Amino acid sequence: MLKFPNGETRLFPIIGDPVIYARSPERLTAGFERRGHNGACVPMQTPDGALAAVMRGLTAIPNIDGLLITMPHKFTSFAYCATGSETARLFGVVSVMRRNVDGSWHGDMLDGLAFVKAQVDEGAKPQGARVLLLGAGGAGSAIALALLDAGVSELIVHDVDAARSARLLELLADVGRGRLKAGPPDPTGCDMVCNATPMGMAAGDPLPIDASLLKSSMFVGDVIAGHGVTPFLKAAKEAGCKTANGDQMVEAVMEIMMDFMLDK
Amino acid sequence: MLKFPNGETRLFPIIGDPVIYARSPERLTAGFERRGHNGACVPMQTPDGALAAVMRGLTAIPNIDGLLITMPHKFTSFAYCATGSETARLFGVVSVMRRNVDGSWHGDMLDGLAFVKAQVDEGAKPQGARVLLLGAGGAGSAIALALLDAGVSELIVHDVDAARSARLLELLADVGRGRLKAGPPDPTGCDMVCNATPMGMAAGDPLPIDASLLKSSMFVGDVIAGHGVTPFLKAAKEAGCKTANGDQMVEAVMEIMMDFMLDK
Repeated sequence: MLKFPNGETRLFPIIGDPVIYARSPERLTAGFERRGHNGACVPMQTPDGALAAVMRGLTAIPNIDGLLITMPHKFTSFAYCATGSETARLFGVVSVMRRNVDGSWHGDMLDGLAFVKAQVDEGAKPQGARVLLLGAGGAGSAIALALLDAGVSELIVHDVDAARSARLLELLADVGRGRLKAGPPDPTGCDMVCNATPMGMAAGDPLPIDASLLKSSMFVGDVIAGHGVTPFLKAAKEAGCKTANGDQMVEAVMEIMMDFMLDK
Repeated sequence: MLKFPNGETRLFPIIGDPVIYARSPERLTAGFERRGHNGACVPMQTPDGALAAVMRGLTAIPNIDGLLITMPHKFTSFAYCATGSETARLFGVVSVMRRNVDGSWHGDMLDGLAFVKAQVDEGAKPQGARVLLLGAGGAGSAIALALLDAGVSELIVHDVDAARSARLLELLADVGRGRLKAGPPDPTGCDMVCNATPMGMAAGDPLPIDASLLKSSMFVGDVIAGHGVTPFLKAAKEAGCKTANGDQMVEAVMEIMMDFMLDK
């Protein structure tokens, strides 16, 4: 067994700016090791104006098998994909890219799938569920599509920016087939409540909904990672709800990402 | 302590084609770890026609602090260096590049220094020595300059291609200051004998000189790495000579390379 890294190591760089806070290099590299794959995720700081040059350079290196895309490049990187998943094409956004057989890139956005997997792993049952989704931005949009794909019966979207909810409803009209609507931030009658807003990242943020409306029958999830139990999840636990946090979503995304990267 | 690699890891890719046989990724990465530096050498296969795109892309990534250059790019990469060492400029060749303060590249060719260091580490005394150098190609040229810089009193160069020796003598006329000449492959009267020819890589290669001419007072070195004790070194040992092999040169180059990469 060769030491790591070595001349045969396959690379999966993460592209973004900043990248120093990214956890993928250690997590994904450790995941590959567990799967017996000689692969490394390495950070590559890519300033805003450098994307075209970096993409052209990395595409020309045959032992780069995949790319992880983080801010500010999630939307602009879609243009470098020859093919894409339904999520990537619908939202014009990618979080991961892998090679097609001809060396071109196939893009996908795994955040929605990872969020739903984290909920299911912790006991949520999206099939047939009535769901309140808070936030219709990048994460919220991907989660909305993944929840619809997972078979929810009704999906109520709330965003403080009503135009953003409206745009998401329009984009997902075909997939939603009448199951999707905009609504107030009221979880009454819902089986799942999903926070895809940034509320909870900064100290003193208000909760995304009035926590007194939570019932113990509701499953409550949060996208916010790296902040432990957010005030919103704390309130949900106190109401007796089962919960899934952003760190569990990050764990889930690693497994889904490895499946994506190695499934050629 | 973060796991490795992580978001703060600095990168030192090795560029070449093929790169799968390169030992630098594991050796240099382990060396950085010994020095407490969060750095990784990762392989980046770069086909012949891809150098320009790859250089442009990697140059745009600020956490790439250095590059290792191997075949077929040792000569063509010099064009991407804003500044270079005497060796790099004289021969138009680089084996390593690091950033200048403004982000541009500074190139150097460390093979000669590493060869001389391996000889000295094993007991050779180049200062004032009379030396026979076999081979005036890329490795031989770098070694010739390093020996002159190390203070040899006379350097006799032999190459089966006389035009190659003549070109090297011309290039090194200023540095040599009369100490350098072409000559036959005869070590008589020499203190050191240095093989910089590929003789010894293939089974059945003839020895680069007539081994019966070796005396126990001579120090004999060989550039050939990864082939254990070459037939030439075996003959030298039987003649009672002290020796240094190509693997010791590779070890020496790692230390010199780390000094180069981290000396900003």
